[in-house]
Amino acid sequence: MCVPGCLEAIGRGSRYAVRAPAERGGHAPARRSFTRVLDLTHALGPDFPSFDPGPSLVTETVATLAQDGYNMRRWCLVEHVGTHLDAPVHYADAGASADRLEIEDLVVPLVVVDIATKAQDDPDAMLTPDDLAAFEAAHGAIVAHSCVAMYSGWERFVAGKGFCNADAQGVMHFPGVHPEAAAFLIERNVRGLAVDTLSLDPGRSRDFPTHRAWLPTGRWGLEAVANLAALPPTGATIVVGGPKIEGATGGPARVIALA
Amino acid sequence: MCVPGCLEAIGRGSRYAVRAPAERGGHAPARRSFTRVLDLTHALGPDFPSFDPGPSLVTETVATLAQDGYNMRRWCLVEHVGTHLDAPVHYADAGASADRLEIEDLVVPLVVVDIATKAQDDPDAMLTPDDLAAFEAAHGAIVAHSCVAMYSGWERFVAGKGFCNADAQGVMHFPGVHPEAAAFLIERNVRGLAVDTLSLDPGRSRDFPTHRAWLPTGRWGLEAVANLAALPPTGATIVVGGPKIEGATGGPARVIALA
Repeated sequence: MCVPGCLEAIGRGSRYAVRAPAERGGHAPARRSFTRVLDLTHALGPDFPSFDPGPSLVTETVATLAQDGYNMRRWCLVEHVGTHLDAPVHYADAGASADRLEIEDLVVPLVVVDIATKAQDDPDAMLTPDDLAAFEAAHGAIVAHSCVAMYSGWERFVAGKGFCNADAQGVMHFPGVHPEAAAFLIERNVRGLAVDTLSLDPGRSRDFPTHRAWLPTGRWGLEAVANLAALPPTGATIVVGGPKIEGATGGPARVIALA
Repeated sequence: MCVPGCLEAIGRGSRYAVRAPAERGGHAPARRSFTRVLDLTHALGPDFPSFDPGPSLVTETVATLAQDGYNMRRWCLVEHVGTHLDAPVHYADAGASADRLEIEDLVVPLVVVDIATKAQDDPDAMLTPDDLAAFEAAHGAIVAHSCVAMYSGWERFVAGKGFCNADAQGVMHFPGVHPEAAAFLIERNVRGLAVDTLSLDPGRSRDFPTHRAWLPTGRWGLEAVANLAALPPTGATIVVGGPKIEGATGGPARVIALA
C-alpha cells in the first residue's frame, strides 16, 4: 500500500510540484535520435536469482542438427525471471497483460536516477521522493511518458546469492523504490519504472506496496535491468522488448537503450 | 543447399554487383532518428500456427491475486513459435545462440521488399535475386549491416490454417526466400533476413536451403513478422527484441520498427 494519505496529498498538490512544464498526455511525434545501442538485459540461465524456490527456467533439447537437421529446445519458465517486464495484470486482475500494452509506451525516454552511493552502505536503501526532487533540481523536471530507472549498483551481485542477499531469517535485503517515490512518478505521468534489483520493492518488503501503487494504474515495471551505469541521467530512449504472449503477467524482455 | 555454383559465382563477382558504394563493415556511429514506433509482432497464443504437431505454447497459472497477492503464470514453449528469432545455432552447432548475438546487429536499418503482387496469385512465390535487383534499381543499393524483410502479404492468413496452407498431401504452400536471394544478401553483408510467413524457406521446401545458406554464416532470421505493409521500402530501423536466454536457438521476439 502507499503510505496513508500520500496519494490524496498528491491530489491536492504536493511539495514535489512540477517546476517546469512537462510533456503530458498524447504521443506527439517528436523526432528522437541516437547513435549508440546498449543492451540492458542480463543473460538468463537456469541459475538466475529468483524469488521462487523452484526452478524458474528449465530448458530441454527437442531437436538436434545431427538427428533432425536443426537445433531446437523447449523452455519452461515462470513469467517473472531474469531481466523482465511486470505488466499491470501482475497486480490487478483488470490490468493490461503484456501483449496489450501500447507499443508507444514501450519506447520512451529513459531517466536514470543514481542512488548507488547510499546503496553502497545500505542494502535496504530506497529511491525516495527526496532523491527524485534532488534529481529534478539537477537535471530538470522528469518528463511525462518516460521510464524512470533506479540505478543502485546492485547488478554487481547478479551472478550469486548476493543478488537476493537473504539473511539468516530468509529476509532479503536489496534496494528498491519507496511507494511515495512511485506516487511522485505517477504524478509526473511516468509510464515505466525500472530497477537493477530483483524487485520494484526493496528486498525486505513483505507486502510490495510499490508494486501495488504502480502496476494497477496501468503502468509497467522492469526488474533486474543491466548496464544502467553506462547511460546518462537523461537523453536516452529505452526500448522494452517485452513478450507479446496473450495474457502474460510479464515475462523475460530484451531491454535496449538507444543513446 | 544453395544452388550449386551460386556462392562460388558470387565469389567471382555476380551479375548482381553492387552499383553504388554501400556501407560495409564496422559500426560507424551514424546518427539515426525516428518519429513513429510500430509493433511488428503478432500476439502469440496456444493456437498460433506452427510447424510442430504438438502444442508449441502451453501456459499454466502458478499464482493468483486472490490467493497469492499477485498473478503469475508459467510458459512451456518451443523456441520457434510466433514472431520469432532464428539464431545461427539453429542451423550450425558452432553458430551463435540468441544471447550471443551482438546488440548492434539487432538494431539495424530495415529494408522491405514487397512481393505481395506475385504472392497474391502464387502461394509458392519466392523472393528472388531478380526481385532484389529490381528493388535496388528503384531504391538504390541495399545497405550493409541491415535487415531485409520479404513482405508477401501472407500475414492476412495468420489467424487460421491458411498460414500453413497445407495441401491434401500435407505439403505446405506459402512464400519464402530463394537461396540465391539469400546469397545475394550475404554478398551485400546484410545481417538479418525477415519474412511475414512461417519460414525463411517457402512452405513446400523439404530441405530448407535458405536456412542452411543464411544462418551458418552468423546471420539471424525473423519469421512471422507482422505489419510490414505499414513501412517504407527504406529508412526505418528494426529493433529485434530477441530472447537473451543462454544457448537459445531462437525464440519469440518483440520486433519493433522505428520510422
